[in-house]
Amino acid sequence: MTPENLPASATALTLADPDTPFAVVDVHRTRRNIERLAARADRLGVTLRPHVKTAKSLDVAALLHAGDRHCPVTVSTLAEAEAFADGGYTDITYAVGIDPHKLPRVVALLRRGVTLRVLLDSVEQAESVADASRRAGFPVPAQIEIDCDGHRGGLRPDAPVLARIGHVLHEQGCLDGVLTHAGESYFARTAEDQRLAAKNERDSAVAAAERLRAEGLPVATVSVGSTPTAHAADDLSGVTELRAGNYVFFDLVMAGLGVCRLEDLALSVVVTVIGHRPEYGWVVTDGGWMAMSRDRGTAAQAQDQGYGLVTDLVGNLLPGLVMTAASQEHGTLTAREGSHLPDLPIGTRLRILPNHACATAAQHHGYHVVDSSRPEKGAPAVEAVWNRVSGW
Amino acid sequence: MTPENLPASATALTLADPDTPFAVVDVHRTRRNIERLAARADRLGVTLRPHVKTAKSLDVAALLHAGDRHCPVTVSTLAEAEAFADGGYTDITYAVGIDPHKLPRVVALLRRGVTLRVLLDSVEQAESVADASRRAGFPVPAQIEIDCDGHRGGLRPDAPVLARIGHVLHEQGCLDGVLTHAGESYFARTAEDQRLAAKNERDSAVAAAERLRAEGLPVATVSVGSTPTAHAADDLSGVTELRAGNYVFFDLVMAGLGVCRLEDLALSVVVTVIGHRPEYGWVVTDGGWMAMSRDRGTAAQAQDQGYGLVTDLVGNLLPGLVMTAASQEHGTLTAREGSHLPDLPIGTRLRILPNHACATAAQHHGYHVVDSSRPEKGAPAVEAVWNRVSGW
Repeated sequence: MTPENLPASATALTLADPDTPFAVVDVHRTRRNIERLAARADRLGVTLRPHVKTAKSLDVAALLHAGDRHCPVTVSTLAEAEAFADGGYTDITYAVGIDPHKLPRVVALLRRGVTLRVLLDSVEQAESVADASRRAGFPVPAQIEIDCDGHRGGLRPDAPVLARIGHVLHEQGCLDGVLTHAGESYFARTAEDQRLAAKNERDSAVAAAERLRAEGLPVATVSVGSTPTAHAADDLSGVTELRAGNYVFFDLVMAGLGVCRLEDLALSVVVTVIGHRPEYGWVVTDGGWMAMSRDRGTAAQAQDQGYGLVTDLVGNLLPGLVMTAASQEHGTLTAREGSHLPDLPIGTRLRILPNHACATAAQHHGYHVVDSSRPEKGAPAVEAVWNRVSGW
Repeated sequence: MTPENLPASATALTLADPDTPFAVVDVHRTRRNIERLAARADRLGVTLRPHVKTAKSLDVAALLHAGDRHCPVTVSTLAEAEAFADGGYTDITYAVGIDPHKLPRVVALLRRGVTLRVLLDSVEQAESVADASRRAGFPVPAQIEIDCDGHRGGLRPDAPVLARIGHVLHEQGCLDGVLTHAGESYFARTAEDQRLAAKNERDSAVAAAERLRAEGLPVATVSVGSTPTAHAADDLSGVTELRAGNYVFFDLVMAGLGVCRLEDLALSVVVTVIGHRPEYGWVVTDGGWMAMSRDRGTAAQAQDQGYGLVTDLVGNLLPGLVMTAASQEHGTLTAREGSHLPDLPIGTRLRILPNHACATAAQHHGYHVVDSSRPEKGAPAVEAVWNRVSGW
């Protein structure tokens, strides 16, 4: 934590001070999560290109390359690309299929010296990128999106149109490589299924790269990744880089998949008890879906965690307590069958661990930062307040 | 639309111009929705106190009292209360059970001359409010929350503790009245069920008020409301005011309940086609859950509308087309069985009608405003850009 991250107003602030609800990041857990995947990428011999769409924070991103030069990053919006370019990042992949209307902002970033790669899976998009490159006088680097598991966009590695797109891009010097994302791995319930999803993701990307190379086309980048596959891959030969985003914070969906433990979850939301409904077994809080998001990712898992699990203000899990319902500014906590509803008087502050860190973080302007490696008596100290990038 | 609402950058702007996704408000439909409920409240002989939690916009609120003095409003956060106080509103009800920690901000608004009422349903909260009033030297006006349908907070009208809370408040001059919200009316599928929900909401509030009056306690305000019951109530005798929020925009959940027609929906999100997966029957857009929210309110209705229905850029419904899946920045459009997937080339702009206007609006910083009463050739003109209040 550098002094410039510490606003004057944060001095001596603890999690008992700001009005609730607000989002909290545990910097100790975040660092540990970051180190874990960085070590994996080293062992696998690939460059790690973290996806900053989860935290959307220059301060969190600074932990990715602790004091060293800015690392490569992946972004989900041009607003993120612009904010990270302003923050000194010069190696950025925009991993959502390019809308040709957005190419002027891409070209403007390239003119600033940022290597910003775009993604596409159609001849129309490739022609737009080639055309923008001709007009700019320099190539807009582009990757071809490969679909490895029928999750959303991309071309199957054996799609006949792949070579044609490669040639359209290459004629203007735009072809950078291929990129795939194993979106279905979020539903791979066992470690073996996740390992197989990682193998399939790698195999699909490498097969597409080989097809392009067989056409005489240069493929510099072979990019794969999702948080589950990044933690499951045991062989990434032929792959040049690994992407993952959620892992900096993790969440209940990832814990449910066994990708992390509950004690790795670095994002939570502080809420306050504002009522009791003993006749229904409910504790009512001031944290509803506006604070948590409407994401119910664990509903599809073996253990449905409602809108989240509950800890005390220090971060100790309150076993059996679940946030089972949400309206805009109200949350309902209920004890699971066989569990005891603890005594939680009006004004008690709790922390809710979310289903989906990306969605919950997006409901907040920023993060109050705590460090669980420095245990304190009482409410944890707020070490800093970090902002988020938002919008498009 | 006053000139000061029109930023220079909006001159000659149309919905074809800003990068997608972005939120659009149709001011014509919004005005019509507002006039409809205002006329109902007049006929029912109650004051209308719109809930500004849906639009969270001073510009939208200005349509509620067209040029006239500021109307009473309901808010869901103190951030809204503060923003509306800054905007000249002096009669505000904060309709979420009060966290005692937030009372200093309530007192600060009262000192500024704003009549800000708080809500509570426990002796502990009433004692905190009485204590804050003693220290401030003036009463903090408070309403007792009544539960009419087991939805979340509040006391049943016959709860033994009701009188005691009334006395604790009255001793400091804080007792303003009672408030209830028929949250379960969002699941009342027929007009008759909605009428019964409205009757139950009215009966519960009036019964609680009568119990307090029988104790010799003054009850000035008897407040009821939800968008479905506000549009279904046929007798509000004994009620002084009606609250509703969602109705300014309406959404697919309200259309599914029959409270409005699809052509009343005033909020939509403009997205762009970025890909096609003919093998799956998918059109891929750049509007995912970050733009729409994760809300799937219609999943519980007879007709599940996925993440939303689809219109062209002008607002004409594309029949049978549904947004069936969302990731963070990707939306998937699919034709319903028996419907034809239209030809939507890369770059085509569409508008998505959301499940839940409150949740979708919250994903955006503001609104691009169009006026469908002035039909134009081609993309609708952007008449203004309006900001939203956010945070807590």
